[in-house]
Amino acid sequence: MQLADLSNGLDTVWVVLTAAMILLMEGGFALLEAGFVRQKNAVSIIMKVFVDIAFGALVYYIFGFAFMYGKDALGLIGLTGFTMSGDLAHLPANISHDTFWLFQCAFVIAVISIVSGAAAERIHFRAYIVYTIVMTGLIYPISGHWIWSPSGWLAKLGMIDFAGSAAIHALGGFAALAAAMYLGPRIGRYGEDGKVRIVPPSNLPLASVGAFVLWFGWFGFNSGSTLSATNAGIGHIAVTTMLAAAAGCAACILFTMLRYRKADPPMVINGALAGLVGITAGCSVVSDGAAILIGAVSGVSMVLVSEWLEKRRVDDPVGAFAVHGVSGSIGTLAVGLFALPGASAHSGLFYDGGLRLFGVQALGLAVVAVWGFALTWVTLRLISLWKSVRVSADEERVGLDVSIHGVPAYSQERDFIDVDKLREP
Amino acid sequence: MQLADLSNGLDTVWVVLTAAMILLMEGGFALLEAGFVRQKNAVSIIMKVFVDIAFGALVYYIFGFAFMYGKDALGLIGLTGFTMSGDLAHLPANISHDTFWLFQCAFVIAVISIVSGAAAERIHFRAYIVYTIVMTGLIYPISGHWIWSPSGWLAKLGMIDFAGSAAIHALGGFAALAAAMYLGPRIGRYGEDGKVRIVPPSNLPLASVGAFVLWFGWFGFNSGSTLSATNAGIGHIAVTTMLAAAAGCAACILFTMLRYRKADPPMVINGALAGLVGITAGCSVVSDGAAILIGAVSGVSMVLVSEWLEKRRVDDPVGAFAVHGVSGSIGTLAVGLFALPGASAHSGLFYDGGLRLFGVQALGLAVVAVWGFALTWVTLRLISLWKSVRVSADEERVGLDVSIHGVPAYSQERDFIDVDKLREP
Amino acid sequence: MQLADLSNGLDTVWVVLTAAMILLMEGGFALLEAGFVRQKNAVSIIMKVFVDIAFGALVYYIFGFAFMYGKDALGLIGLTGFTMSGDLAHLPANISHDTFWLFQCAFVIAVISIVSGAAAERIHFRAYIVYTIVMTGLIYPISGHWIWSPSGWLAKLGMIDFAGSAAIHALGGFAALAAAMYLGPRIGRYGEDGKVRIVPPSNLPLASVGAFVLWFGWFGFNSGSTLSATNAGIGHIAVTTMLAAAAGCAACILFTMLRYRKADPPMVINGALAGLVGITAGCSVVSDGAAILIGAVSGVSMVLVSEWLEKRRVDDPVGAFAVHGVSGSIGTLAVGLFALPGASAHSGLFYDGGLRLFGVQALGLAVVAVWGFALTWVTLRLISLWKSVRVSADEERVGLDVSIHGVPAYSQERDFIDVDKLREP
Repeated sequence: MQLADLSNGLDTVWVVLTAAMILLMEGGFALLEAGFVRQKNAVSIIMKVFVDIAFGALVYYIFGFAFMYGKDALGLIGLTGFTMSGDLAHLPANISHDTFWLFQCAFVIAVISIVSGAAAERIHFRAYIVYTIVMTGLIYPISGHWIWSPSGWLAKLGMIDFAGSAAIHALGGFAALAAAMYLGPRIGRYGEDGKVRIVPPSNLPLASVGAFVLWFGWFGFNSGSTLSATNAGIGHIAVTTMLAAAAGCAACILFTMLRYRKADPPMVINGALAGLVGITAGCSVVSDGAAILIGAVSGVSMVLVSEWLEKRRVDDPVGAFAVHGVSGSIGTLAVGLFALPGASAHSGLFYDGGLRLFGVQALGLAVVAVWGFALTWVTLRLISLWKSVRVSADEERVGLDVSIHGVPAYSQERDFIDVDKLREP
Repeated sequence: MQLADLSNGLDTVWVVLTAAMILLMEGGFALLEAGFVRQKNAVSIIMKVFVDIAFGALVYYIFGFAFMYGKDALGLIGLTGFTMSGDLAHLPANISHDTFWLFQCAFVIAVISIVSGAAAERIHFRAYIVYTIVMTGLIYPISGHWIWSPSGWLAKLGMIDFAGSAAIHALGGFAALAAAMYLGPRIGRYGEDGKVRIVPPSNLPLASVGAFVLWFGWFGFNSGSTLSATNAGIGHIAVTTMLAAAAGCAACILFTMLRYRKADPPMVINGALAGLVGITAGCSVVSDGAAILIGAVSGVSMVLVSEWLEKRRVDDPVGAFAVHGVSGSIGTLAVGLFALPGASAHSGLFYDGGLRLFGVQALGLAVVAVWGFALTWVTLRLISLWKSVRVSADEERVGLDVSIHGVPAYSQERDFIDVDKLREP
Repeated sequence: MQLADLSNGLDTVWVVLTAAMILLMEGGFALLEAGFVRQKNAVSIIMKVFVDIAFGALVYYIFGFAFMYGKDALGLIGLTGFTMSGDLAHLPANISHDTFWLFQCAFVIAVISIVSGAAAERIHFRAYIVYTIVMTGLIYPISGHWIWSPSGWLAKLGMIDFAGSAAIHALGGFAALAAAMYLGPRIGRYGEDGKVRIVPPSNLPLASVGAFVLWFGWFGFNSGSTLSATNAGIGHIAVTTMLAAAAGCAACILFTMLRYRKADPPMVINGALAGLVGITAGCSVVSDGAAILIGAVSGVSMVLVSEWLEKRRVDDPVGAFAVHGVSGSIGTLAVGLFALPGASAHSGLFYDGGLRLFGVQALGLAVVAVWGFALTWVTLRLISLWKSVRVSADEERVGLDVSIHGVPAYSQERDFIDVDKLREP
């Protein structure tokens, strides 16, 4: 046994375990989304999470990974590594290519899962499959290349996005916004008088537990992004992650108590997630205090943006844009303000780093936001030339579980019934 | 601090963490099974999972482990190590005996949990306890010895079953088949005209999340089976596990869309699990491409076998045989076809290894299948000499939750009621 | 790469991963408690778990940690390390202060979560927030200092409480008892004739899965308490944890089958937890056999104490005292009986250690129990000078979900409704 073998082994198990934690976040997304939507669509949203993980993994294996982490061409795209073959010698050497791929695969699945929530209760299943292939195979890998490939043009400018407030969450959040706007509001979401109408979440205990599972997975998401177990920053990353999540959650508890005179459960759930999204870019380079501030601002902004979107008639059933798009943006910009000296090439505005880093962060964010929004819109438009992206009004009223998947999410049936009733094609 | 201490420490935490992940799979089984059965039996099936983990662990500690990993006698059985005492010097030296036991204990609990699903909604609780003791103390340990003890006769023949497509899943799956056949169909499952009748799962969101939890645990199951963190194959094992699961899931999405014109949620859930079961034997020795193929074939086969069993009047409420028995068989045989040269003593048929390895795999599978089926049948027969293995028709109609455990799984009661109503013996 | 870097890295990832597992236990508490209470209070209890994790983490960061692990004053309290600044050179050197804090933070959140269950269905949300701040900032840190700071007076006496049967569970359990007694029984819990009345748990599948999640987290709780991956005891700790849990669960299955003629699901769920609580103090110093005994005794005692409390008109909705208070006490005392020679300075009574260790354990337990009970009572009393600690009778009858948080836990609504109905202040 050599020291090097031990070091590689340690890094490998660290990355495999944290990748597994990130993949468990799909269970968290499933719980969160099934809990937030109406009962009649609870299975259909979970089926989309299965699409995320199944098609996402295969597509990313076959070509998405190559576009993202293959050998760079012009700082714009990778072009080797299809099905993990070809020249990948530029990847980190302390872990195997397999191990590196697994971790990145967990990330791409998180991105597409963000979009599923915004499209809930009305996107057609077959359209969603096609969109998933485009998102995990092209949209995310290409912008991801810009930020995270060492040769990417944003990386070269010095953009800091440690675990992906921009690359993952802002991209996914703006894609979610595009999907919500393209699809339009759910039937009945706005009254004939234009007044906002609402519906209580179908299962808040499930949604809450989804948040706890996501919180757990986030320790893998952020700390695991070191890709090395001997990175001295792991403890600090985990602590800023914890503090930002706590601050986002606590801020939403207090803010909704002030604003609505009651701690609002869906906002509290999303507040914790907003804090987590916000700290994702800067977890390794900001102080504990900045982490608390970023978390709290992310939480409160999420509430305000949720309200604003609702009034603007943008119907995002689980708050995907408010959580991922807004907090992802806050987190990306916050790095430009709070990055500690020594933690990276340039420090933030508040630490005498000037506007250099903030400018790069803002540019990177703008690029990712436009890219995510525009490509999603175009993709949905192209899909609609083939088949409708949205289910029919009848299917929506019945609920997608029965109309698209042929089975209800919940059944209290005590006895067997004739099979013809459920399985006729 | 010596290098050796560090190496042992690293292996220890790797095995303890992956063992904990496997044990969390019991939560996954509980969710999956409670979601698939009718509401009136949701607690009773979870109580069986508690029996699996509680009695399984104690029995395996007292004597099951000794029969499996104790000092070998004739290649047939181990005979030392009762309550972890006695001569166990032949166990791997890089981790403590305790650590090794914990990992194996997590495995035995998985085996018995497979059977619980097939017997759901009609097996009597006390009979299930007795069966659990026999399965975890005798049936699995003995066949496990043949395959996994270095001195076991199948191991000596060169059988490859890395994390247990045969030793765990085929054994559990064929035992599940025996249990389902011995118990007979649930009341009302087949109409008076012989026509198949069905009932929707009671809680598909729970069942889905169960699948995600199981998927997470499987990274512990397969990668952890290296029992060493410096095994160079860990990354590859995790990737083949991921790809096979994705392929099984994606295949079931597409196949049921073609076959039923709707992506069928229970089949999609089980499709992911089928892919995972299928890759369990070969995760360390097959290529990524083979993993995808194994996963997809496992998924589609699971659908077809489920349909076929249903027509054959074998009533397996959660598809335990179709998932674990069938995919476990496919995975075991697939090693004989796809094992890469250099990965083991013999390579598979498609890599010029000839029929040698395939023959051994087929033999091992046949032995394990017959052993699991026959011993389960005999055990249930013996138990029935003492007490009925199946609940009474009345108990079944009422539902096992209330009739056997005295409490419903779900209650919407808002106010307190008299205790006599619930606790009278 | 030096050996020391590798060693620190290994310890760091071990502690971060186990801390994350402990934090996931909050998801377990949420499931367990939401499943045990009535539907109309399922969200309100989960909101309290969000308070635990959000306010608990922030408070412990700002001052709780300093009182517990700051530089000692008189063996009574720590006084450095507010916001993790100042002199903390006395902390373990193998992991960073950040990493150490994260693990301890996961512990404090567990403590307060214990109390939430006993106060369920009637404590007011704002009072609970204040109590959480006091518990996580003062009550637990101070008694924790006595036991776990090397300079604490109980630590100096030689008290052994490896992962906190006393410091966490007995403290939390006796605090829970005080809260349950201070608040008084829920409306309708006792009939006009004084007869005990009951209500079935609202969602036993959720509660069960909560137990599995807690069980999983406990491997982090106990094994992670080594704070070092090269501690030779890790395997043994994990095994005693597993065996005690299995024994507690199996004992409750058999005992309730004898006593009620049916395996009682809530008791079986709590039985597993009782076993886990019981072994928490001694997991590193008792034998496997003792672990089984401790687990079984904890399980049976939990049933008996639950019954006794019910008759005594102490209304503890989830059995927090019976699980954490009683089993925590048993576990703390059991160390005085079963501690193996060589495992610590003094061995237990049954191993010729005499009454020395048992006396210290009893003293420490008594101190912690009185401290937790009295301070909780006083705190609730002080809070009640400001605002009522208990919700109004009307709010209680309606259910806290709607009356305090403005939204039901579960909704079967299929269509949108006017927003005014839900969000009016």
